Amino acid sequence: MNLEKNLRQIAKGAQIASRLLSGLSTAVKNKTLKDMSRALLAHKETIKKANQKDLSSARKLGFSQAFIDRLTLNDKRIKEMVDSLSGLVKLADPVGETIKKWTRPNGLEIHKVRVPIGVALIIYESRPNVTAECIGLCFKSGNSVILRGGKEAVQTNLAIYKILQAVLKRNRIPEGAVNMVATTDRRAINILLKLDKYIDLVMPRGGEGLIKKVVSLSRIPVIKHYKGICHVFVDKYADLAMAEKICFNAKVQRPGVCNAMESMLVHQDIAKKFLPAMIEIFKKAGVEIRGCTKTAKIVKGIKAASEKDYHTEYLDLISSVKVVDSVKAAIEHINNYGTHHSDAIVTKNKLNAEKFLREVDSACVYLNASTRFTDGYQFGLGAEIGISTDKLHARGPMALEELTTYKYVVFGDGQIRS
Amino acid sequence: MNLEKNLRQIAKGAQIASRLLSGLSTAVKNKTLKDMSRALLAHKETIKKANQKDLSSARKLGFSQAFIDRLTLNDKRIKEMVDSLSGLVKLADPVGETIKKWTRPNGLEIHKVRVPIGVALIIYESRPNVTAECIGLCFKSGNSVILRGGKEAVQTNLAIYKILQAVLKRNRIPEGAVNMVATTDRRAINILLKLDKYIDLVMPRGGEGLIKKVVSLSRIPVIKHYKGICHVFVDKYADLAMAEKICFNAKVQRPGVCNAMESMLVHQDIAKKFLPAMIEIFKKAGVEIRGCTKTAKIVKGIKAASEKDYHTEYLDLISSVKVVDSVKAAIEHINNYGTHHSDAIVTKNKLNAEKFLREVDSACVYLNASTRFTDGYQFGLGAEIGISTDKLHARGPMALEELTTYKYVVFGDGQIRS
Repeated sequence: MNLEKNLRQIAKGAQIASRLLSGLSTAVKNKTLKDMSRALLAHKETIKKANQKDLSSARKLGFSQAFIDRLTLNDKRIKEMVDSLSGLVKLADPVGETIKKWTRPNGLEIHKVRVPIGVALIIYESRPNVTAECIGLCFKSGNSVILRGGKEAVQTNLAIYKILQAVLKRNRIPEGAVNMVATTDRRAINILLKLDKYIDLVMPRGGEGLIKKVVSLSRIPVIKHYKGICHVFVDKYADLAMAEKICFNAKVQRPGVCNAMESMLVHQDIAKKFLPAMIEIFKKAGVEIRGCTKTAKIVKGIKAASEKDYHTEYLDLISSVKVVDSVKAAIEHINNYGTHHSDAIVTKNKLNAEKFLREVDSACVYLNASTRFTDGYQFGLGAEIGISTDKLHARGPMALEELTTYKYVVFGDGQIRS
Repeated sequence: MNLEKNLRQIAKGAQIASRLLSGLSTAVKNKTLKDMSRALLAHKETIKKANQKDLSSARKLGFSQAFIDRLTLNDKRIKEMVDSLSGLVKLADPVGETIKKWTRPNGLEIHKVRVPIGVALIIYESRPNVTAECIGLCFKSGNSVILRGGKEAVQTNLAIYKILQAVLKRNRIPEGAVNMVATTDRRAINILLKLDKYIDLVMPRGGEGLIKKVVSLSRIPVIKHYKGICHVFVDKYADLAMAEKICFNAKVQRPGVCNAMESMLVHQDIAKKFLPAMIEIFKKAGVEIRGCTKTAKIVKGIKAASEKDYHTEYLDLISSVKVVDSVKAAIEHINNYGTHHSDAIVTKNKLNAEKFLREVDSACVYLNASTRFTDGYQFGLGAEIGISTDKLHARGPMALEELTTYKYVVFGDGQIRS
């Protein structure tokens, strides 16, 4: 009961603060962000000390090395956090922009104006660098934020939170602008997800289990940053040298991220020409191939792909391969097995390209380029809070603008409706 | 089990159809809409006969006269449905528009392109004219629709559905573009709301109970068209003659709709001057006033407003009245008791106007105009599917453009990430 009251209080405070944040000038926001950035650097040792506590608990509990890696904040990662905060200063403030305006025949002047969303709840797992990034992005876009990080990173998260909270205080920003729910009580998420009176948006950042839980419990609108099962389709009209380069880049350049290729589709008419060399290149780079029966006929000795493989985000040096008999079959496969994230076609045929780009139902569709470009910086949007695989409100890279909404401000001089 | 399988089949069919709809030309969509409009007119008697069945059941079950009114389709209402479909032909097709495009230093050309959302589920109550309107709006914006209407209107809805489905067939549009769930099984909604693999958006149109149920059960993103507790605040710097006109219009011109005023806030410094005449005018128009203690001191013999009154959408000739001591107090009252729909300030003071327009957290905020203008046609957007009281994706009038989303189409010539 106390927990519920406490969380409601936090959410209410966040809402009250959000109304003040929405009116803050860009100058004040930028000054505060600079101070935040400096404070993190100045208190580097405090952060590292707190991180050591989390790391030692995690080791005692026998977490995997990959987990320990994600949890670790070293000088380099702290520098990245510091830079991400100061980098926000240079980005344009989306708040207050008049998106459109027009005048009605009765003289009413209608302005569609960009405003912050209000209060964002971010639920994430063990990467503590997310804490500073999310605080910075929400603050610059004029939103209050409630953070609920993984319990394994709680000491690190609290250290970062306290340092940034002190900066808010010095800049006379209400405490409710940034909130951290650090209780170990597992009911916290369930309670928070019902507070739709105060919280406007929830973004789960983490594995499938977390996202499914949030979607099924939440009364608050959710924007999902879901996994990326991304495809490259090599059409029969592809420039095969280009296709080789693109597939290799999409798979190998950084396999552990959501915009990496997990599945390569190849048109049957060029499969015999393309696959042997491509798979050889992949093998040399240590990529394990799991192929369909047609692939196995063309290249001997490769592992067979199961139905499950086509649904799997490996995030590793593994790729499924499927030979398909048409653009249509490629599109259907992608729409059925993909996650509506990023998918590419390599082709010189205009009609096939148009069909693919139109009918593949993904946030980002590419012609003759690597899927690895789905990223706020690569798109030129700046820092992002994630890649939305949802269709409403924000799709693809979610940068500062996607953390805003709009309102209609209507100017009259006595108009009434007849 | 059969019901679940059946609904899954419908949702899957709607998704498949949506992929074809998204590529339909504007000409084909407009031709089909014209045919739909003509078909409804041609089969007017069939619709009226079906409506008679629903009306006679509703009378037997003892429904109220207001309910029977909403359920009734007479010649005039059928004509409105016919006109709403043919009116869509004239509106611009939002699909395919390039919202923005830019080229990156590496030569990648990024196009942000407007596309349909996919599959919309609309859950509504007893007004059968909603059926044709929603089919038309979703079709023109390239979305498949699944309709779940109130069981009391099922005969009428089915008649309209069958007439329009025949038009789709003649125009070679897949059946899955328009779907009606007419089963009397009450589990249908619960099952549909879990089909987030196929359905992209749910819009509940109806009372508070329905909306709360949908929000708590749905795994699909919901856009709420919630009630409107709209306010007019008469500032101490108001032109009182203008304020009188605006408050009267907002309350009386059509009290049964969501953008009508439910609560009037008056600055204490002009309350003595403004309230007696205003309340007299309201009384003459048959408006019942429920006032705060300060109001009651100024105008004798009026009913006292309870806390509950400020939370009530009367949709009737009743208004709560509250005297407040500042713009700030007015804003706080509106943000606490309102429903983030439409709120107005009447003032000649620029600073007060700016403060109100910025800090009132509503979809539409007005300066010196009636709240009654919150409407797709009044805004010049054309037909609307509702007024969103949510903040994500669509806020305020939801017309054709708000029934679309975007995707990024990226054109390369071999770009890879380094």
